[in-house]
Amino acid sequence: MADLASPAETGVAVHTLPAPYLLFLGDTTEAGFAKTAFGLRDWAGERCIGEHALPAATVSVGLPAMGPREAAAKGARAMVIGVANPGGVIPPSWMPALIEALEAGLDLVAGMHTRLADIPALAEVAARGTARLIDLRVPPARLPVASGRKRTGRRLLTVGTDCALGKKYTALAIARGLAESGTSATFRASGQTGIMLAGEGIAIDAVIADFASGAAELLSPDTNSAHIDVIEGQGSLFHPSYAAVSLALLHGSQPDMFVVCHQPGRTRILGHPQFPVPPIEAVIEQTVMLGRLTNPEIRCVGISLNTSGMEAGAAEREIAETEARLGMPTADPIRGGDAFRRLLASCHS
Amino acid sequence: MADLASPAETGVAVHTLPAPYLLFLGDTTEAGFAKTAFGLRDWAGERCIGEHALPAATVSVGLPAMGPREAAAKGARAMVIGVANPGGVIPPSWMPALIEALEAGLDLVAGMHTRLADIPALAEVAARGTARLIDLRVPPARLPVASGRKRTGRRLLTVGTDCALGKKYTALAIARGLAESGTSATFRASGQTGIMLAGEGIAIDAVIADFASGAAELLSPDTNSAHIDVIEGQGSLFHPSYAAVSLALLHGSQPDMFVVCHQPGRTRILGHPQFPVPPIEAVIEQTVMLGRLTNPEIRCVGISLNTSGMEAGAAEREIAETEARLGMPTADPIRGGDAFRRLLASCHS
Repeated sequence: MADLASPAETGVAVHTLPAPYLLFLGDTTEAGFAKTAFGLRDWAGERCIGEHALPAATVSVGLPAMGPREAAAKGARAMVIGVANPGGVIPPSWMPALIEALEAGLDLVAGMHTRLADIPALAEVAARGTARLIDLRVPPARLPVASGRKRTGRRLLTVGTDCALGKKYTALAIARGLAESGTSATFRASGQTGIMLAGEGIAIDAVIADFASGAAELLSPDTNSAHIDVIEGQGSLFHPSYAAVSLALLHGSQPDMFVVCHQPGRTRILGHPQFPVPPIEAVIEQTVMLGRLTNPEIRCVGISLNTSGMEAGAAEREIAETEARLGMPTADPIRGGDAFRRLLASCHS
Repeated sequence: MADLASPAETGVAVHTLPAPYLLFLGDTTEAGFAKTAFGLRDWAGERCIGEHALPAATVSVGLPAMGPREAAAKGARAMVIGVANPGGVIPPSWMPALIEALEAGLDLVAGMHTRLADIPALAEVAARGTARLIDLRVPPARLPVASGRKRTGRRLLTVGTDCALGKKYTALAIARGLAESGTSATFRASGQTGIMLAGEGIAIDAVIADFASGAAELLSPDTNSAHIDVIEGQGSLFHPSYAAVSLALLHGSQPDMFVVCHQPGRTRILGHPQFPVPPIEAVIEQTVMLGRLTNPEIRCVGISLNTSGMEAGAAEREIAETEARLGMPTADPIRGGDAFRRLLASCHS
């Protein structure tokens, strides 16, 4: 186990990104691969001044098209890779555009497993100029071990019955909804796309295991008692590969409140069909049981259902039935409406 | 979250160390700082051919004294740093001996946070010759994400009410005891000292969080149905900093059996006095509840008490009282005796 070091001693901060961004779309012809760019447009529009696609691309997120030099002249400070490629590699066809961005002085930001800094051609260009290669899956240096010290202010964590079902967008919607209703609230990003959206954060799953809870503590520092940090969850306590990441985030976040995110109809853990998706009730029980180690006051304040694949009527029925069964405010934050307003009100209680 | 990759695809193995060892004792004058060397002598005597202390040292573990060149001539293949220094740094006074070992062709093995490879003088000498710098807190490259696939054979994991109270030595004693009674058993090391003792293993707490359960899966591969892998536990599910490391090891190990390790009289978590040491009963309950995700058959087979600070009579009473209270075989494996034989028998049931 690691030696103890307080955040003050380590002197590190979370990743912080320069903005505004130029969104790079590569030569993408399927919108699904550009979901990061669409997310940035929808949830961080104020951080985006344009998009840059190669001639072969057919996907646009609807921002003004511009090259790296034009974007730099208009004030852009970074080009964010907003597309995923099968296998997570950078294809040779992207290289001229990435080099052009660096030469125009734009930092290059990516959240892939393949690190920009490990690509010699990019590393060479970056070394010659002032633009940086920012790999969001490389955690900040010298993270502290978790102290367990209770921090001031209030925190809400989104947790899930599985991976990839809406924990990030639920947290974004709650932070936005609270702010719109006059409550001071900040979205806290724990994954690479979330960091692009927020402009800062730490990819918890990329941190050395000994320091993962400590990184989660850094993510939502002391704040005033009226403020709510809304923390993006990761994985699931019932996931055979990633439960430890979820627990590190739960213990380090010390949430006063949590919202369980679930996708109706998903019955098996994504990529692990031998494992069932747990009932929402089991996730509530286990989150309270484990979370009370670092915050005895932890409680569930609502359920977020991802009904993106459902008709409006079926979604409404599912939401109403879940709310009746669990006795807990339930909503699809993306659909909003009265249900979501009740969930937001529950965060104040 | 990481992309999936099977162990076969990644082609990596656990750390494996060359033996026999020369144990380096530095200029240590307090036996407590040399506990790694004493552990190696007691639990891996067949891997150790000598000790090398600087003139200022007053501590000996009782092995033949010899310099690196003599050790190499007698067949040694590595010099293991068997002492800890306050702060975990390598003092300048050690450097000539470390360089001499490398020049004699001995690999240098260390488990400190300070990496040997980050010390320029050592890196230069190593680059010139064939001897390697082996930092046990640097995990093997390209570890897989956990698959959750149930492996063949049986596994026993030691878990704890806290850190640093005997999980490693309990696992060693159980593996040795099983082997002596004719059961095929292997100690599986999950921390740096354990790796030195076993000659192989992975320091789970030094693995990127996303891959920690996957590393634990690699640690105890498929085996025959009569064999028992005895896995060294890490941390505690009730530790505010390290619970996630413990959970990763629990999920990846898929233990059929576990033994709870506890130190009577310890009431507060080491280094975190605001957190109480949990009752053994709570550790049993939580380990079963979380462990059944990857092995529904998980059960507690015994309690290991670290009574090293107690008189023999008081230790016997504590063991008997704990056994009566929990209805579970209870022993101090270091004291052995009938109590420990009952605990070993419980691992067969």
